[in-house]
Formats: sequence, structure tokens, C-alpha cells
Amino acid sequence: MPTVVRLGLLGLGTVGSGLVEIVSKSGSVIESKSGVRLEIVKALVKTKDKPRPLESDKLTFDPDEVFYHPEIDIVVEVMGGIEPAKGYILKALESGKGVVTANKAVLAQYGTEIFEQAKRHGKQLGFEASVCGGIPLIRALSSGMIANDIDDLVGILNGTSNFILTRMYKEKLSYDEALAMAQDRGFAEADPTFDVEGIDAAHKLIVLTELTFQTKATLEDLEREGITKIDPIDIHVADEFGFVIKPLAVAKRTGASLNLRVHPTLVPFEHPLGAVSDEFNAVMVRGDATGEMIFHGKGAGSLPTASAVLSDIIEIARNPTGGIIWNPAASQRFEKSEGRTRYYLRFPIEDRPGVIGRIATSLGDHGISITHALAKLDSSAGNVMIVTHEASESEVNAAMVDIAATVVLRGEPLSLRILG
Amino acid sequence: MPTVVRLGLLGLGTVGSGLVEIVSKSGSVIESKSGVRLEIVKALVKTKDKPRPLESDKLTFDPDEVFYHPEIDIVVEVMGGIEPAKGYILKALESGKGVVTANKAVLAQYGTEIFEQAKRHGKQLGFEASVCGGIPLIRALSSGMIANDIDDLVGILNGTSNFILTRMYKEKLSYDEALAMAQDRGFAEADPTFDVEGIDAAHKLIVLTELTFQTKATLEDLEREGITKIDPIDIHVADEFGFVIKPLAVAKRTGASLNLRVHPTLVPFEHPLGAVSDEFNAVMVRGDATGEMIFHGKGAGSLPTASAVLSDIIEIARNPTGGIIWNPAASQRFEKSEGRTRYYLRFPIEDRPGVIGRIATSLGDHGISITHALAKLDSSAGNVMIVTHEASESEVNAAMVDIAATVVLRGEPLSLRILG
Repeated sequence: MPTVVRLGLLGLGTVGSGLVEIVSKSGSVIESKSGVRLEIVKALVKTKDKPRPLESDKLTFDPDEVFYHPEIDIVVEVMGGIEPAKGYILKALESGKGVVTANKAVLAQYGTEIFEQAKRHGKQLGFEASVCGGIPLIRALSSGMIANDIDDLVGILNGTSNFILTRMYKEKLSYDEALAMAQDRGFAEADPTFDVEGIDAAHKLIVLTELTFQTKATLEDLEREGITKIDPIDIHVADEFGFVIKPLAVAKRTGASLNLRVHPTLVPFEHPLGAVSDEFNAVMVRGDATGEMIFHGKGAGSLPTASAVLSDIIEIARNPTGGIIWNPAASQRFEKSEGRTRYYLRFPIEDRPGVIGRIATSLGDHGISITHALAKLDSSAGNVMIVTHEASESEVNAAMVDIAATVVLRGEPLSLRILG
Repeated sequence: MPTVVRLGLLGLGTVGSGLVEIVSKSGSVIESKSGVRLEIVKALVKTKDKPRPLESDKLTFDPDEVFYHPEIDIVVEVMGGIEPAKGYILKALESGKGVVTANKAVLAQYGTEIFEQAKRHGKQLGFEASVCGGIPLIRALSSGMIANDIDDLVGILNGTSNFILTRMYKEKLSYDEALAMAQDRGFAEADPTFDVEGIDAAHKLIVLTELTFQTKATLEDLEREGITKIDPIDIHVADEFGFVIKPLAVAKRTGASLNLRVHPTLVPFEHPLGAVSDEFNAVMVRGDATGEMIFHGKGAGSLPTASAVLSDIIEIARNPTGGIIWNPAASQRFEKSEGRTRYYLRFPIEDRPGVIGRIATSLGDHGISITHALAKLDSSAGNVMIVTHEASESEVNAAMVDIAATVVLRGEPLSLRILG
């Protein structure tokens, strides 16, 4: 006899529709593999006008019909955004439902409150879909690597940014052209801010940090830069120097404190993350017992994300007393400086005598040595690109200020870290 | 209040000692993360003479003291081999213990019998450590990807073979030199047959096949070749042609049947598995919902394997009613031919006029076209290496027979598949 699990969906957009598609196509296979029969009972929608993959009597405008529905066992929150999603999740848990969510923004900001609610009502919260879509990363970190102390975690967590940088690299597109292509293919929203400014990746990094390092983190604890300042010239010069620019998220122990960062970074060709292209995500994590491990797959999209939602649903149905351990302490110290690293620097200059010499001298004055330098000038203007040996962030910042004061620059200079 | 879980170990070798080490070093962290306190009560050993990481009153020569011990909750089988390991696992389940094993050989041959025993006694069997050591692959496939139909699975499952081929590639060692280095570092046994002949990888592929495709498989259902015939010249010519030779295990749906293979294969440089080096393992799996996913990490060794064993122990402790779904049906048809693929061929020849022409002509006569050809001759003898367009196995075999009959060869010709 299968266990019948009745689902209520909050939202029937990309992920919700993917879920309906998989249940209708593969429900019987899932049942034969897991012993769990899935039934979708209700879905909260904003409009009944568009064509929907569910019968219209299952659609509702009233959220109470989902989380107060007597027959629903698990509520699936796939509406996104902070409110009303957060309030709905809390109400669903309160009314005795298990909850599965793909909502990293809510978890990054209200994870502790939500998990306390789940514990109070003895219910489980699944969030496999919130980070890296189809990759079963949350269970790998929380359960598969439970015997490990994690030293660091480096990931490409935002598929949109990775897609844009990949297209700029492979097709020599400008940022705007690559963004338009991403929007065209449904990888980027009309307003791409969350993705391209690293906010989405920051939310995911917070979820991973709270889970992996069992420590409370907020957006203020991390350093964040988007990909919008990357010029095609940076990508092609990095390539000449043996690097590919990737949108990285990093959580790293440095002594007693943690360093969290989200920014585009130069990754050496031979590094495994350098080969993670297009909309793919990957996370490299180092445990004291397992050593280095890499998880690589599709981080977003209707079916991959719905696949992760379904894995949570089956886990909750089969292991009602288990669940993911989420118990972040508030005690961790965060350290914004991350020690010494190599840098890529670009200075947009006017072609005046002595400019290149002044930049190089100023870097030397701040104790920064150069491993690669390249000047590309078109008649009167151009760029000087420099790769440094290891330097501290404060040395680099001081040199940048110094250079901006003594050299006429055409625009903002750029500094990017190089993955060690 | 933590849940106290008492462990009995069958074996205290590499993995058993790693387990003791992690429990003693990280037991309290594991407890704070999981709520499970681990206690090692007994360990079955063959001798008490060597130094052991456990107090001597916990060591025993009598297996009954492990699986009939009234206080032991979970029996950990890390002794390896078929018997007595298989009998001990069955007895431990019968006497009401959960069982965690790293033993792919037993599972590949007696998995069904063992899982039936577990079901009969309402106990769980964890086997995360049996394939790809520290990588949480078993749960990823059985739970994380449960909503997926798996199309194919390609992996580097044997770290020893990968280490040997990597050292032959990077340090230009002969097979024997690389094997000696692997033995020196503890990556290969004194008798390396299981690893280098692909038997270990075949066992792991059977476990993955039964789990992923829910179908019963045996060693007879798969095609298997070892790495012992690989000459340094194959590795270096493959490199010139843009490939790296990797020990692959492949499970692939072809229509209604499954094709299982374990053999060294030419992998294009740009393929993600081409970058998996040394003792590392990786598995690439394609699900209908998630698309392509890659798991990469250390596949063997004391601590990575013990980490996987511990993840099973915690899962069983926290989810006593759950467990991995293992329900292979006997009905699947296996198909040894795997359709058309590109081939790398090497013919060891004497330098006589017309030999190269006869080889090329014979291939053409069998409908096989050539994309790369290279002859390397040292005065009187040498090799002809050929890369073909796609051809069927029967075409290639027929051409090889034909060539062996018409050309004087110095030794066995070699044919390797190229990953498409």
C-alpha cells in the first residue's frame, strides 16, 4: 500500500508547473521507487485566465484553502519573494503541514524564525531547491558530509551571471548583449538586479553558510560585488593570462572567523570551476574527512528545481521524524578581509606620456609586485591591465586611491581577485 | 537529550580505524549537529597484537559478540570480501541490528538477498561507502534524483586505475612503474587484479545499476576490460589527438535494454571527466528532470570512506523508518552491443612495405573511416595508431580479425572506445 501524500502549492509559475509536469508524467515511477503516491490537491494562483496544467477546481485565490486544507499534508511554497511567502510558510507549519520551499531570499533573512516554527510544531521544512536547483547539495552537506568539519566552500551559485559571463567569453558579446540573450532564453528577469548584482548568490551563500558552518549570517556579513563592471576586455585579457572570470561565492574559515564573499573572480583554466559554463552551477567544498568534493549541475529551471522540490517531499513522506538539521548559533565572528590574494587590475587611461610608469611605480610603492602587465591603447585612450603577486586588500585599495589621484583615468579602475 | 547509538564494528582495518578516528575527534561536533551520540562498543579483529585505536576490552575475536551484543544498535561491516562478511551481515540484520557496509562485492553479488533480509526484519542497510567513498552518491541517486528517470551514468569508479593511468600520463611512467607507485602509496593491493582488471569498478557499477535503474544485474551482464593492456604510447598518442584515457564505467539505456561496460576509454580534453585525476572518482549522471549532473571527490581512503559510513549511521539513527529504496526487478534486458562509437586502434607492426596501406585499406573495406592516423616506427618495428569515425563494434572486430590475418603483427592489436 503506498503512502498517499497530498500537496498544496503556493504558486504555479515556472517551478510549480514543473512539479505538476513531473507528477503527472513520472508519478507512478516515483510511487514504485518510493512507495509514495503524490496527489496535488490545491494550487494558489493570482489569475485563472491563463492556461494551467491543473484542473480549474484545484486552483484557488485564497491561501487559506491551501494551508488550512484538511487533506493537505505538505505545502509547497514556490511563489518567491519575501511577503506574503514568509507569512504563508509560518501559517502552513502552524497548521500542521510539512513545508517545502525553493525560496532562498526568505531563508536567508528569516531562516531561524521559520525553522523555530517548524520545530515548535514538530514539522519538517525542506529547502533542497533553494540552492543550486537540481543538485542535491543541501542533503549532501547536511547529511552526506555530517562527519566533516567544512574548511571552505566555493561555488558558482547564480546561473544567470554565469551564463552572461560565459556568452561574453565564448561569443565575444558585450555585457548588454549577453544580458539580452539571457533574458531572451528565460535565464534573466526583466529587472536582472538580483542576479547580476550578486544578491541571489548572496542569499544562497547565507543559506549554505548557516547550514554548513551552523552559524547565523546576514547580508551585512558578506562582501558583495556584481558582474556589471566586467568589460569584454577583462574577459579577453584574463583569457590571455590563463584565467576565466566566474561569478564566485566563497565561505572560508580564517582562524576563528568566517569570511563570506560574492564577486566575479579570475579562475585559472585548470581549476575545476573554470570549466563550469553557461547556466550551470557548481560547488566545491572541502571537508576534513572527505577532502575536496565538487557538485556540478543545473542550478535553475523549471524541471531541475521541481526535481529538488520532489526529493524533499519524498524525504518528508518517508522520514517524518527526520529532517535537515538547521541550528545556526549567533556566535560566529565574520572577518571581511580575507588575507592575501592575487589580483587582476584594470586602469582605463588616456594615452599620456609616463602613465604606465606611474601606475607600475605606485603599485611597487605599496609593496605590490606584478606578474603580468598589458597595455592596450587605441590612438588616444585604452586600458592598462595588471596581474599581481599576492597582496592584501588594503595594499591594493591604497594603491588604487594613489593611482586615481596621480593619473588621469577615463573611468573607474577595476580590481578582481584571483582564485588561489 | 541526544540519541545514543551504539556501534559494533566487523573489521578494524583502514576504514574501521578511520571511523574510530572520526568518532573520537569529531564525535561531539557530530552530536551537536545531529543530536546523535556515537559509542563504539565492540570491534571484531583477527589479532590483538598490533596497536589499535580502541581499548583492548572492546576488541573481540568472536563475531557473535558483535551481532548478538544486546546493546549494539548498528553493525558496521568493514571487513570486505564475500564470506564471512555476507553471513555476518545477514545475522546482524536477523538479530535486529541496522547494518552499514562498505562492501560492494557482497552487494553486487548478494544485494537482493541482503535487502530482503533487511526488509524481513524491518531494519535498514546503509551502503553509501560502497561506491565512490566520500561522495554522497548513493543518497543523491536514490533520494536526491528520485523524481528522475536516469538515461545514463558514466563514472570513474576505481581510484587505483585512475591513479595509474594519471601517473602514466603525467610522469610518462610505464604501467608497471605506475602500479608500483600506487602500491607504494597504499592505493593498490599487493595483488591488484580486482582494481586493474575492472572487477571492483564492475561491482560498483552493478550496485549503481540496481539502485538507479531498479534492475537486477550480474557480472555476466556487463562487458569488462582492464587497464593492463594500455601502453605509454597509447596515452601519449591519445594526448596528441586531444584525448585522455580514463577507466570508465558506463550504464546506458539503449531503447528497452541496458548496456553496462567497464573499460579504459578515450575522453576528450574538454569533457568534465577528462579532468578527474589521480585517485579521484567522479560520476556523471543524466536525469530527465535535472539534466546532466556531476559528482566528484575522493573515492577511497580511510577517512573519506569512514565519512560515508558515518553519514549512513546518522541517517539510520535519525530516520529509523526510512532507508534507501532497493527494489531491483529481474526483468531488464541487457544488450552488449552499444551502438556506434568512435574508436582508437593500435597495431604493433614490423616495418615492412605496404603494411600501413593494408591496415588502412582493410578498415575502409569494413566501412570504417579514419579521422587521425599516426605511424611511429623505430628502425624495424613500431605501431600504427588510428582514430576512426563512428563504427559498430562488429565492424571493428571484423576489421581487426582481417588485419591480424593479412598483416604481420608483433603483438595483440588494441581497440579502445572514445567517449562520444
